[in-house]
Amino acid sequence: MPAYKYVHDVMLRDCEPSGIVFLPRYFDMMHNVIENWLDEALDWPMSQVQGSDNLSLPFVNVSAEFPAPSRLGDRLTWRLSVREIRRSSMWLEIVGTTGAETRVSMTGTLVLTESIALRTRRWPDAIHERVKDYLVASDPAAEKVAE
Amino acid sequence: MPAYKYVHDVMLRDCEPSGIVFLPRYFDMMHNVIENWLDEALDWPMSQVQGSDNLSLPFVNVSAEFPAPSRLGDRLTWRLSVREIRRSSMWLEIVGTTGAETRVSMTGTLVLTESIALRTRRWPDAIHERVKDYLVASDPAAEKVAE
Amino acid sequence: MPAYKYVHDVMLRDCEPSGIVFLPRYFDMMHNVIENWLDEALDWPMSQVQGSDNLSLPFVNVSAEFPAPSRLGDRLTWRLSVREIRRSSMWLEIVGTTGAETRVSMTGTLVLTESIALRTRRWPDAIHERVKDYLVASDPAAEKVAE
Amino acid sequence: MPAYKYVHDVMLRDCEPSGIVFLPRYFDMMHNVIENWLDEALDWPMSQVQGSDNLSLPFVNVSAEFPAPSRLGDRLTWRLSVREIRRSSMWLEIVGTTGAETRVSMTGTLVLTESIALRTRRWPDAIHERVKDYLVASDPAAEKVAE
Repeated sequence: MPAYKYVHDVMLRDCEPSGIVFLPRYFDMMHNVIENWLDEALDWPMSQVQGSDNLSLPFVNVSAEFPAPSRLGDRLTWRLSVREIRRSSMWLEIVGTTGAETRVSMTGTLVLTESIALRTRRWPDAIHERVKDYLVASDPAAEKVAE
Repeated sequence: MPAYKYVHDVMLRDCEPSGIVFLPRYFDMMHNVIENWLDEALDWPMSQVQGSDNLSLPFVNVSAEFPAPSRLGDRLTWRLSVREIRRSSMWLEIVGTTGAETRVSMTGTLVLTESIALRTRRWPDAIHERVKDYLVASDPAAEKVAE
Repeated sequence: MPAYKYVHDVMLRDCEPSGIVFLPRYFDMMHNVIENWLDEALDWPMSQVQGSDNLSLPFVNVSAEFPAPSRLGDRLTWRLSVREIRRSSMWLEIVGTTGAETRVSMTGTLVLTESIALRTRRWPDAIHERVKDYLVASDPAAEKVAE
Repeated sequence: MPAYKYVHDVMLRDCEPSGIVFLPRYFDMMHNVIENWLDEALDWPMSQVQGSDNLSLPFVNVSAEFPAPSRLGDRLTWRLSVREIRRSSMWLEIVGTTGAETRVSMTGTLVLTESIALRTRRWPDAIHERVKDYLVASDPAAEKVAE
């Protein structure tokens, strides 16, 4: 399956007093997965995106389900795949599991913009090509991606 | 309109180098709004929920749109309302605006569980009553709330 | 006493599973206190410092003691005072208490720099004047402040 | 040299709008280093410390210098060593460098306590033995460690 994989052990900083992962931390982890994918799989580290390329990659939407809680020390295996890539946006699917159990299942739309104006921008051709390796067949009924 | 209101100025900690709010921080702010609502509006502070009451209030799903970016110093006005309350879950709507511009629009389902087992629990009657003050007419077609 | 005061209730996000405040969160709170002081007391919000003024205010050192732990729901009263102000640096003291109990006691040195080069810069005269209101008699033996 | 080594690339979440690492994030990273050291070097993961062992490892003091700023994408190499170990406390030194440049230099005292009461506790013998591998000759003049 064309997914990028990333492993994260749940640390003290991820949890709240009831012992489970604090919701906002899942989005921190998700962003971590994306930044590592950009760097390792696409060879396009965020320091270049926002540095020499003077671009930005904000989310315009995100949606997540949390079927079961995670706890301190749990090993979360994250898998990132691309549901759809358009001219200046991509629709990502990011799932975190521990063993056979799904803990988080997210989708979200990233848009490529110019750093200052935050106007959308066309993907660089080389990046568009590399992203295709992570593209999964998407549900044609799903219409969550911005143009 | 029966919304709980909370004001937050965007701080250094909320932003990333491109100058806009970092996505996971919006969820931190959202949780802040919820915890303050529990405390101030429902008189049920999280320290009691998780302390003497030995309960927990995790999310089972969350969904958000970010129509426009926020920047350092922006004053975000958050409004929380309840779309639906069931036996042991509630479906919240939380919107953050700056002036007339919507920056974040979220919905999410909180469930009440026992702290250890994380099994769902019935809302205390007094809390159920108070929550009604924040209830808005919900779209009957929307079916995102757990039982 | 010429201290700036700021109240923060310990939230879920501040605590780790053992139920006490997670050390890095104290530094988040400390920075919050400083940013609110800049805005409310000095009329110099961080959005101006880093925005139109194109400056930065990083720490070059910080030192803290934690005599007693804080827990979810504790009301922390923070007090900020200035031990010394020099040409382009200031030595701050920031203390967090709950009731009569000190929870955190910090000192640290902020330096004013240009945003890009991060070279030190002389304080604007108006800011230098306003800071004096928060200046306490400092121990002449203490020599932690950069020039 | 008897130091535990840990590499961290500076991510979006670590930086603030001026482009440099936000001070509280250094303490997040420092805690990460400690938790990984406990797990990998001492075979005593935090999930066991706070879980089955029912203990806690809070800081009672911490002190840090930041000789140069770090930026998005910088590779920080962290080195942890132990300056002193006593009955129920240890004095750690944690340094973060990029290339030949020191970015952060910290020392801090961890104490072992019981989870509930937060009373100090004697180190388990096996842990005390393993920690010795990371012990450096400490400056006898330095007297920052609690008993």
